[in-house]
Amino acid sequence: MVLRLSTLFLRTLREDPAEAEVASHKLLLRAGYIRRAAPGIYTWLPLGLRVLRKVEEIIREEMASIGAQEVHFPALLPKEPYEVTNRWTEYGDGIFRLKDRKGADYLLAPTHEEMFTLLVKDLYSSYKDLPLSIYQIQNKYRDEARPRAGLLRGREFIMKDSYSFDIDDDGLEASYQAHRSAYLRIFERLGLDIVPVAATAGAMGGSKSEEFLHPTAIGEDTFVRSAGGYAANVEAVTTVAPRDIDFSGAPAAVVRDTPQTPTIATLVDAANAIAPRYSGPWTAADTLKNVVLAVDLPTGERQLVVVGLPGDRAVDLKRIEANIGVYLPTAGEIGVEAAGEEDLKKHALLVKGYIGPGLSLDAAVLGAEGTTKLLYLVDPRVAAGTSWITGANEAGKHVFGLVAGRDFGWDGTIEAVEVRAGDEAPDGSGPLEAARGIEMGHIFQLGRKYAQALDLRVLDRNGKLAVVTMGSYGVGVTRAVAALAESNHDDKGLVWPRSVAPADVHVVAVGRGEEIFAAAQTLAEELEAAGLEVIYDDRPKVSPGVKFGDAELIGVPTILAVGRGLVDGVVEIKNRATGVADNVAVGAAVQYVLDAARR
Amino acid sequence: MVLRLSTLFLRTLREDPAEAEVASHKLLLRAGYIRRAAPGIYTWLPLGLRVLRKVEEIIREEMASIGAQEVHFPALLPKEPYEVTNRWTEYGDGIFRLKDRKGADYLLAPTHEEMFTLLVKDLYSSYKDLPLSIYQIQNKYRDEARPRAGLLRGREFIMKDSYSFDIDDDGLEASYQAHRSAYLRIFERLGLDIVPVAATAGAMGGSKSEEFLHPTAIGEDTFVRSAGGYAANVEAVTTVAPRDIDFSGAPAAVVRDTPQTPTIATLVDAANAIAPRYSGPWTAADTLKNVVLAVDLPTGERQLVVVGLPGDRAVDLKRIEANIGVYLPTAGEIGVEAAGEEDLKKHALLVKGYIGPGLSLDAAVLGAEGTTKLLYLVDPRVAAGTSWITGANEAGKHVFGLVAGRDFGWDGTIEAVEVRAGDEAPDGSGPLEAARGIEMGHIFQLGRKYAQALDLRVLDRNGKLAVVTMGSYGVGVTRAVAALAESNHDDKGLVWPRSVAPADVHVVAVGRGEEIFAAAQTLAEELEAAGLEVIYDDRPKVSPGVKFGDAELIGVPTILAVGRGLVDGVVEIKNRATGVADNVAVGAAVQYVLDAARR
Repeated sequence: MVLRLSTLFLRTLREDPAEAEVASHKLLLRAGYIRRAAPGIYTWLPLGLRVLRKVEEIIREEMASIGAQEVHFPALLPKEPYEVTNRWTEYGDGIFRLKDRKGADYLLAPTHEEMFTLLVKDLYSSYKDLPLSIYQIQNKYRDEARPRAGLLRGREFIMKDSYSFDIDDDGLEASYQAHRSAYLRIFERLGLDIVPVAATAGAMGGSKSEEFLHPTAIGEDTFVRSAGGYAANVEAVTTVAPRDIDFSGAPAAVVRDTPQTPTIATLVDAANAIAPRYSGPWTAADTLKNVVLAVDLPTGERQLVVVGLPGDRAVDLKRIEANIGVYLPTAGEIGVEAAGEEDLKKHALLVKGYIGPGLSLDAAVLGAEGTTKLLYLVDPRVAAGTSWITGANEAGKHVFGLVAGRDFGWDGTIEAVEVRAGDEAPDGSGPLEAARGIEMGHIFQLGRKYAQALDLRVLDRNGKLAVVTMGSYGVGVTRAVAALAESNHDDKGLVWPRSVAPADVHVVAVGRGEEIFAAAQTLAEELEAAGLEVIYDDRPKVSPGVKFGDAELIGVPTILAVGRGLVDGVVEIKNRATGVADNVAVGAAVQYVLDAARR
Repeated sequence: MVLRLSTLFLRTLREDPAEAEVASHKLLLRAGYIRRAAPGIYTWLPLGLRVLRKVEEIIREEMASIGAQEVHFPALLPKEPYEVTNRWTEYGDGIFRLKDRKGADYLLAPTHEEMFTLLVKDLYSSYKDLPLSIYQIQNKYRDEARPRAGLLRGREFIMKDSYSFDIDDDGLEASYQAHRSAYLRIFERLGLDIVPVAATAGAMGGSKSEEFLHPTAIGEDTFVRSAGGYAANVEAVTTVAPRDIDFSGAPAAVVRDTPQTPTIATLVDAANAIAPRYSGPWTAADTLKNVVLAVDLPTGERQLVVVGLPGDRAVDLKRIEANIGVYLPTAGEIGVEAAGEEDLKKHALLVKGYIGPGLSLDAAVLGAEGTTKLLYLVDPRVAAGTSWITGANEAGKHVFGLVAGRDFGWDGTIEAVEVRAGDEAPDGSGPLEAARGIEMGHIFQLGRKYAQALDLRVLDRNGKLAVVTMGSYGVGVTRAVAALAESNHDDKGLVWPRSVAPADVHVVAVGRGEEIFAAAQTLAEELEAAGLEVIYDDRPKVSPGVKFGDAELIGVPTILAVGRGLVDGVVEIKNRATGVADNVAVGAAVQYVLDAARR
């Protein structure tokens, strides 16, 4: 059915709405694709719904191509399954909770791992039933602290979430790779530039994980990449550690008076003043900074941890949060922050500004074996044999030439420092550069965490019960619409890729002559009969300027104008993206548009 | 893509699940269409989702055919618009409410009148923009006290809800009729028997309203119909009132002692004993019963009302609730119940068992003009000129021959009595019979209630602001799946109408021979290539009995079995509904199924 602008439920806006900041949000509002219903909650108008459905259909086709089967879960779910996995608690303020009339607890699901696990447990019982991949395209809810950028970070939004179920690790790897390739095809077909980056699993648990980021300056996610093709989420970057150094010839460590040097800068100045070095001045990179952090555990307890890193580097709390889990007594969502005065008071041995690991292995201060018993983790750059200036655990004193592995030890290494442009990629593909992106998809090898918690076991080849291993795979559907708008627009409006455009061609009747409207209507109907989706601007009393402005704003790939040229038997056909316009004989117009649509 | 049972995410159940009572619920669970996630909240498995999508698509096509445009609202909505119309309060326990992290109130919308009204207000401003019909197919939420019968009365369910916007009453009537005819076509295409019945508007407000009921013994709605074609919801039945009777020759009323007659039965006995009638004994129909009711107003106040009705009839509180609104000071949800002892104590003039309207117009007891000032409403059968035995407002006394209109008046008439089989249809089409049905759709002429409350006004032809008039139209989409299952099954399983069946044909490979599986697979692929949707039972080690049982249970219209006959070049093709089976040559099988599908 031809969409006629005289009756289409649409009003375009001339001005940018005050509520919108980023281009996609402004344009989707101005062009009448969406309207705000509440903070982070949107209504889809007819044109927007068309784009959304096309995105969904591409995803469905690619899910079918890897044998994934569609199901549909409720959005309103009982608390119990989420309690078993502890996510009811871990999500904190991030989810919407409610009670029914009987007082039972419910949530609006942010993601459905538990329910999918229970459903498979309900239906399946044997390794012969596996592998299985099932998915849904469904409303999700998160009570974001700061919903922003329209559809990019909403509170009610649509996701495609799939889950794979396998009997063994090889199966999981195969399901994971199948999803990975399907995701690359989805984004290719959507026309959305994507960088897959290594990621940490975060609150989802599990091991291997990648994010599919759409690079854009307004993206909320920072990632790094090298010219040689490495890409990773900042939390997931691994550091190239120096090889261990032979320290047999290293001089013994010496404690020196360094009064008034509680900061790295003052320490470096003092070092160069009292113990100048022939090979060049000391720099911050020669110092070992020991930062005391407070970790809020899922149990509610607060644990202090000390992290050692080169003095020229800053700690990155998010990277620590993402990676410290393996050293903690309990799994789950944790928070890491710098320790406060109150925290430090509890440990008299920690002298602020002069904290060090201790002067020898026998006199360790930090670490599980040290006098403080505090967990001591170091950046991988603090490799065995490296020599440092660091605190002597006494006000106004530092130790020089303290050798890692000879004079002090640690409980483990951790990715703790801020990644900098110029750092080497871990795969040797060159220096890293920072970039920003929008997370469009995320794939996880969950492993057995959820299956274990919810007791999803099946009979294996030997007739014994085995815990199933799972993957979890998400695509932001509403977010894809926003990302497409963000990366496909110009100063006049939206410029949709053909795969998701609300129509193939936008026919504009320009002028007031009856013959113009008659010809435009005939062309619109012929284009429709040829299998194209057509918007027809048949508004009788609207100026050509407004009509063209609306066509550019709405952003359908081909614009066909019927106007003055009609007396010469021609119409103007314009490519919205390139701006190139051709005069085409009326009789050839349908074929011209068909060719453009198939190109 | 052929759905292979070896990999389809499906497990059929042999036994009826304990949780299910009605046939549709049992069979949808047993055949693997749905699973319960929480009370009244269901998950759709692959086969169920296919049926659901087909129902949705039929609705979409018929909505498009009347020019209705699809939009999509959030399910999570802010309180404010629902406060303006007072529905935030009126819904009581019936909706799910929640707060976001900032403490703002939200609800899970049970219906979207307010949001549609506000959206049109946002976009439109002139009568030239109207008429407009917009709709959505979307998740709705109601916190039912007793979710039951699976999808028939759920707490999360899908509805198609449309809303029409017109500048005047004629426009509303046209939009209403367009929806009415679209609804009849939708149910016709779904293969769902429907009776449109006159209804009251209830909490939605507005005037004209019809329900589309699917007649079935397990329906929750009672309605009445006549052989001549009249049908109405019980609340909406109107009574054929007798013509006014000339009372000029009627004798004067007489008060008689009727000790110990607080009930109609004892009164009738007494009347026949002390004042026998020549034309035959007095019956309960000759007495006027005055029932005191307590109405809980939306404001929280409690108001007493007296209803007068023939003594052989019982009051129907639901009918009174549906119809008393016009006599009450405030609009909104009300509750009506029999007045209690406490209520009666406040009115010394009301003598239980002997209540009457008063002995003459000048000595009125009931009614706004009476000494009690209590609102007095009568059943339409209490017409002017009718003569009654009724209470004399004194213990042990009744008045005989009290004539309506001569000796007592009333504040209005109300449909207050239980409708009985045998009552005359108001349109003279014969006696009524009672039936039960499921409400599949409901159409309302809302009028200006919502537009007024939310200030939806547009410029009219004279350039003046005019309040828009609205209609509201719903179809239960998930409920339609259940109703279809309920009315299309036999003792072996489901028997889907072709329009919504999860597939056109179910191919069964019967036996173990490789050639059987090869032939079955080829046929499945050829059927698919011919444009049909195919389920193929390719499970290698499952017995013929189980395979046929599953095919009958799943209920696809055509079942094609490839088995022993293959050596003679034939397959068996069975009509699931009629049970009729034909042996068909392999080469003719595809055409045979195509013909069956198109019939």
